[in-house]
Parts: sequence; structure tokens; C-alpha cells
Amino acid sequence: MASAGVACLPAIRRIAVFGGTHGNELSGVFLVRHWLKDKSELQRPSLEVQPYLSNPAAVQRCTRYVDCDLNRAFTEENLSMPLSDSMPYEVKRAQEINHLFGPKGNENAYDFIIDLHNTTSNVGNCLIMKTSKDDFTIQMIHYIKNTLIHDNCQVLLLENPAVQYGAVRTVAKHCIGLEIGPQPQGVIRANILENMRKLVNSALDFAHFYNEGKEFPPCTLDVYRAFEKVDYPRDSEGQIIGIIHPQLQDNDWKQLKPGDPSFLTLHGRTIPYNGSSAVYPVFVNEAAYYEKKSAFLLTEKVTLKANSVKVSKT
Amino acid sequence: MASAGVACLPAIRRIAVFGGTHGNELSGVFLVRHWLKDKSELQRPSLEVQPYLSNPAAVQRCTRYVDCDLNRAFTEENLSMPLSDSMPYEVKRAQEINHLFGPKGNENAYDFIIDLHNTTSNVGNCLIMKTSKDDFTIQMIHYIKNTLIHDNCQVLLLENPAVQYGAVRTVAKHCIGLEIGPQPQGVIRANILENMRKLVNSALDFAHFYNEGKEFPPCTLDVYRAFEKVDYPRDSEGQIIGIIHPQLQDNDWKQLKPGDPSFLTLHGRTIPYNGSSAVYPVFVNEAAYYEKKSAFLLTEKVTLKANSVKVSKT
Repeated sequence: MASAGVACLPAIRRIAVFGGTHGNELSGVFLVRHWLKDKSELQRPSLEVQPYLSNPAAVQRCTRYVDCDLNRAFTEENLSMPLSDSMPYEVKRAQEINHLFGPKGNENAYDFIIDLHNTTSNVGNCLIMKTSKDDFTIQMIHYIKNTLIHDNCQVLLLENPAVQYGAVRTVAKHCIGLEIGPQPQGVIRANILENMRKLVNSALDFAHFYNEGKEFPPCTLDVYRAFEKVDYPRDSEGQIIGIIHPQLQDNDWKQLKPGDPSFLTLHGRTIPYNGSSAVYPVFVNEAAYYEKKSAFLLTEKVTLKANSVKVSKT
Repeated sequence: MASAGVACLPAIRRIAVFGGTHGNELSGVFLVRHWLKDKSELQRPSLEVQPYLSNPAAVQRCTRYVDCDLNRAFTEENLSMPLSDSMPYEVKRAQEINHLFGPKGNENAYDFIIDLHNTTSNVGNCLIMKTSKDDFTIQMIHYIKNTLIHDNCQVLLLENPAVQYGAVRTVAKHCIGLEIGPQPQGVIRANILENMRKLVNSALDFAHFYNEGKEFPPCTLDVYRAFEKVDYPRDSEGQIIGIIHPQLQDNDWKQLKPGDPSFLTLHGRTIPYNGSSAVYPVFVNEAAYYEKKSAFLLTEKVTLKANSVKVSKT
């Protein structure tokens, strides 16, 4: 964490809004398609905002991915792989996106990427951040949460190496992932679309006010820091033999104590959570995570602090 | 409809329970896999019950189908097609299933098929029947509905040629489809699994009691008869430009009157239902029906009558 005081930071000029990183998560697909035809909703005087369909082939087929998960593809190894015919489609896309919006870690990269996702789990509105050390992003999320009147919005921190992955959005200097649920894959629900829209607009408002010179005072932000994933119980052939227990289903962000029911076998036996302390599960029963061997993600509550931020005059 | 009186019908000996006809509808997949290892739950003294995974390649990939929809493949044309290398996987499967459980329309076919499905729409427990003229099936559904204490169960009749399709289950002499929702594709929810289990057991109980000689008195059955599908509003390129309106979402089986909101465009315009009379929509926002150009199915309420049924002594 930076020391107290005002962090005078560069202006945020170029923001990309990605949809369809997973082709069957339709809120982002529909919004980005709409904005590509009519950008007016995204326009702010101080910003250049680019809506972008990140995995068009997966969108076309309405699948998560074609060859491999694009949102796990932004590794150093993939981004430096020599181009070849046998290269997986999503690795090619990762290199193209890195060329257009990066290069990752470079001065010329986009200032901010907002990546739009849906989940089948009951996370409600969820913002994902990759680091606890980015005053600008903490301030933005703090602002977004405060603009929501009727809705909650939880924050998930994926900083622990055990739960990190090569996400598309990490190409930019700053980023957030939006995960809104529950929404089935391949389905578009009006309420989820509306929530996503509000969050994107609120993020753009913040960036614009910041660019205009508004100073945001020091703040704190309660987040859920993920540290481990828990797989389904499986037999010796890898087949799942226990499903999410009804008492855990839809209870993302709620405390799970050692001994609480976590799984239910098809023979009707309850399998309790066997951790050593209370946790807050999230992404409970996300469809795409069956193959990733994750029935839910364990998190702990922490409070982040951010310095005041203000755009630097240069 | 047959005339009043007792229908003395043959015993029902062979029943197949199909799961995984659509490989990403997991309740049936999980139950059938479980029953293939441990059949005890399905056993009834007078019955030979066969659990069966109908589309194993689609189950393996967790997709609805590999080449084409197996549950639309049981047409005369497909079933009589000469075997070839270029034959779609599901047409091959249809012929194999027809060989094992049919032939369709033949005396040697299985007596009954129960086909297990899930939907992303909010239909709750739904039993699908193909004809209003089958006393045995009407009586079975009447029995199942009466055994449910805490739950509802609606009945959908797909008899109108405009909404009929070559379903797998039509291979047997009698059949029902179970559609339970809402459940996302690729997700297994404990509550939905439990409901499906109850319905299957209740169907088997009925068949067994019937075989044992129990007479079921004449009954009536309220059903929803489907007659038309309604597509999403689309632009000239076929892209969907209006999504299910929040007031229609999750309101399967509830009355929709002319002028009621049906769709919402991404510009925020409400598109009212423009039919000439009140209807009861069902399969509202089912993921798999986007490609089938069906945002929801229109139904009307009708009451079916069935004669008393009793097993014939021969």
C-alpha cells in the first residue's frame, strides 16, 4: 500500500470495454454489439472508450471458447509464442489483443480495461480486482459501490498466486472484471443486463470526473480475498459424486463454517466443509468451473485502503 | 378420445429412463450415471427398468449435441437413412436407439420411455406428453401430480403439428418427457435433481400398481396445449435486438394478454405481445431455443379426459 497523501496520477484516456471474452456469457456480448452500433452511451468528453468483442469465434458458436480459455491465455509464454498454423485460436486472439490494447506491462498499453462476464453462481454484482496496491482502481470501485442505490456490489480480490490466472484485462495498466449473476450460459436476462450497464456507466463517470480534476479523498474498501479453490468430490475415474449442498447453493459471500454442509452425494450423504476456519465461498456452482475442478472459491474478508487520488497536471 | 368405460390395456413391462439426450442438461446425466451403478432405486417387482445415457458423446463434451439435436432426430427419414461415414453422430445414435428400444411404431418397442431434461426457463416441474389420446399416459400423469405434496407440476401437450418434433422418447409405445427448471446448462442443482427423482419414482410406482391389477377410475387432466412459437425480434442480419421483458421473464404458465410487455430492446423500448387473445407462454428464455428461433412457446389451457384403465388379464 502506498503511504498516505494524495497520489497524483496520469490521466486515464483510453478505456476498452470487452464483451464476449467467454462467448456464452451474453450480457457483455449483447452490450458490446449494441455499443459497436451506437457508442453514445459510452461517450465522456475526456475519454476515448472502445467497446470490443474479444472472442468473436466463441460468440458465433455461443461457447465459452473454441480451443482454450481466452481468459487464461494472457501468459508470458502465450504472448511470446511464434505464430503457427497449429496455434490454438485463443492464443492467436491473445496476441492480437495484446497488439491492439497492450503490450501488457508496456507504457503504450490502454489505461483501463473493463471486462464483462456472467456467472451461473449467485454472486449478484461482483467486481474483480487483481491487486490491492492500485489506488486508482480501489477509488473507482469505491465510487461505483457508492453510486448504487438499490443494489449491492461485492468486490473479489484475485491477488493470491493460488487463484490468479492470465486474464485478458491484465493487458491494460488498470483493469476490473465485472461478473454478474446468476445468469445461465447462452441466456440473456434483462435485469442482469441493466445492472451491468449501470456499473459500466458508473466506472466511466468516475474516470471522467477524475480526468476533469476532481480529487477523491482517502477511502477504505471491504473486499473478499480469494485464496483457494475447492473441487467437487470425485470417484477414482474423476466422475463427480457429490453436488453442491442445497444449504450452500446460492449462498455466495455468506459465511461457511467448519462442519457446515458443502456437498450432497447421490446416495443422500452430506459432506461437511472440513476447513479449519470460517470462510466466504464465492462462484458456488459456476458452470464453467466444473472442468476447472472448482466447486467454489474460498475467500476471507479484508479491508483495503487507498490514498486520495487526483489527476496530475502534466 | 376413447369412449367412457374401462380401458383394459396390456401390462407395461419394459421402461427405459433416458438421461443425457442433451449432454448439458445435467440432472438426467447425473441420475442415469448413478442408476447405472446402482439400480436399486428403480426396481419394481413387475417392471424391467433400464437407465440409459442417450447421447454419451454430447455428455462427454457437456454440450447439447455434437452434430445435430438428437431430440429432433427421430424422423422417418433419419431412421431409414443408409449408414455412412458422413452421417451425423446423432442420426447414428438415433438408429442405434431405435434398434435397442424400438423400432418406433412397432409391436416390439419398449412400453414406456421417460426422457429427462432440464431447461433454463422457470417451468418448475413439467411433464410433456405427445398426444391427448393415450389413457394410460394421462392416468400416469394424473397419478404423479397427485403424489406431489409440496410441489406443483404442469403438463405440456405437444400435439399440434406446428410444435411437434422427432423426440427420442417417441420410439416407445408410450412416453413422457420431464423438463425441470430453472437450471443452467452445465450445472447440477440439488433441488432440481431431487424433484426429478421424485417424479421418476412416482411414474414407476404407477406402472407397477397398474401391472399389479389396480384399476384407476376415469379422470380429467388440465394441460397446456402448445400451438405456436414466438421468435425474438431480429434485425435484417438475424441478430436479436430485443430480449425477454422483465415482466415476462420467469413467468412461464402465467397469462399473457395482448398488449402486455414481451420484449425489451437495447434502446429501452418495450415491445408488447401482439396476439389476438390471451395465452400462456412457456419455455420463456430457454437457452437452447435461441438457435431454434423460439423466445417462448404459446399455449392454451385445455382439459383432457381419460377412461378408467386396468391391466388386461391376458
